Amino acid sequence: MKTVNIILMGFGNVGQAFLRVAHEKKEFCRVRYKLDIKFYSIFEIGGAIHSSQALNTSEILEKYSSLTMFRKNPLWKPDLKLTSVLDSIKPGVLVECTPSNIKSGGPALSHIRHALDRGWHVVTASKGPLVIDFRGLLEKAEKKHVALKFSGATAAALPALDIALYSLAGAEISRIEGILNGTTNYILTRMKEGVDYKEALKEAQSKGIAETDPSLDVSGLDTASKILIISNALLKADFTLDDMTVEGIDAIPPYLLNQGRKKDRAL
Amino acid sequence: MKTVNIILMGFGNVGQAFLRVAHEKKEFCRVRYKLDIKFYSIFEIGGAIHSSQALNTSEILEKYSSLTMFRKNPLWKPDLKLTSVLDSIKPGVLVECTPSNIKSGGPALSHIRHALDRGWHVVTASKGPLVIDFRGLLEKAEKKHVALKFSGATAAALPALDIALYSLAGAEISRIEGILNGTTNYILTRMKEGVDYKEALKEAQSKGIAETDPSLDVSGLDTASKILIISNALLKADFTLDDMTVEGIDAIPPYLLNQGRKKDRAL
Repeated sequence: MKTVNIILMGFGNVGQAFLRVAHEKKEFCRVRYKLDIKFYSIFEIGGAIHSSQALNTSEILEKYSSLTMFRKNPLWKPDLKLTSVLDSIKPGVLVECTPSNIKSGGPALSHIRHALDRGWHVVTASKGPLVIDFRGLLEKAEKKHVALKFSGATAAALPALDIALYSLAGAEISRIEGILNGTTNYILTRMKEGVDYKEALKEAQSKGIAETDPSLDVSGLDTASKILIISNALLKADFTLDDMTVEGIDAIPPYLLNQGRKKDRAL
Repeated sequence: MKTVNIILMGFGNVGQAFLRVAHEKKEFCRVRYKLDIKFYSIFEIGGAIHSSQALNTSEILEKYSSLTMFRKNPLWKPDLKLTSVLDSIKPGVLVECTPSNIKSGGPALSHIRHALDRGWHVVTASKGPLVIDFRGLLEKAEKKHVALKFSGATAAALPALDIALYSLAGAEISRIEGILNGTTNYILTRMKEGVDYKEALKEAQSKGIAETDPSLDVSGLDTASKILIISNALLKADFTLDDMTVEGIDAIPPYLLNQGRKKDRAL
């Protein structure tokens, strides 16, 4: 049996869902892969819950999963520093689930750098750090012989990166094409059906597909970030957002929509 | 740069195609993966071409690719034994491309056992050995910490095994469904369109989809072998062909076809 020590960064929807799945699959991982998964810290804004004896995930999920309750956990340590935890336990996996910031990389960028520098594997669902410094992070990971995994950050429901990097390892990729944003996909589908942009966006929001602030989605920046990460990972490129021409769906001239509709396409 | 020593078993369509791709991708593998691929032996019935200095793959592909010419290569060594080659060079990868025998495992079974026992990785496009002794071969591979790869033996055009074993490593598989035989798929599609079985089979043969002897395909045994391998690999099972109920498409009663056609299905 091999022990895998985990530090979880961020306890919003993604972090909570991850903790739940990891908890439910604990026995499966022991039996199938001989892995004993242990959570030591869960960080949120202002501190972390942490135990040097590993956390009781069942209790956290039952009693402390809302963010208000989370900070009332007796193990809540205000102002706990990630670096001090990274230095105090045997390196395992840092799981990064804080909200993405594609302009600066956000706090996730320094979390990941700290972890890789100390020989921790990193799994990130956060796009920001990969958009800002993919090449630099990969070099850190290679230097320490640890993994940097990010399938969850881009086209998360599909094995897009796995297929390309693993199944097609011997193939040369000449072109990448895809629909990488659910909100845009929904809105364009409805627009093709004749619904206008604003109404389609409202629908998407009421169905919980679009965010309350959908600007990253409809401006194309979310899609641009994802294709940037995929390109840098698969084509061994070193592009930045500045290298890209990005057009959103928030300002499509009506004549383009009419043209598309005639060809049974959204655009 | 890491050197990968290869022994190729079988120089029919599959073996030749593999040598050609490996030759064309030689530079790609050096640049992308820092791997220097070297072929030492290519075995065929009655012997092998072999060189202790590694073979000139370009020359073989140009001058000695037909099976008659193959044995006229000055490096042809009649009666060369695989075990003596396995023992004489640094372990690398045995690539098994001899024809499948799903009743006995065929010569491929002993090739693979010899290779694994001596610490060689094995890649097999031949189904026979996996149908007969999947569990035993996997245990040998695990004991020597070498890889046993067989994506090419079943659903070769699809990343079926990769997706399940790698991308879905944390998921539990409850059911496997698929169309695993091109000949059957073609014939059933044509039968749905109203063409009768014998005519559809003839079409498939004239298009080069079906073998001259299509019995393994139409009896269902080819599909059974593939699903057996997939099941044993993904469900960690230890089934044999005797555990399976196999029905071919060579004796479908007409009433079933009529029923299917009414539902817009082949069967």
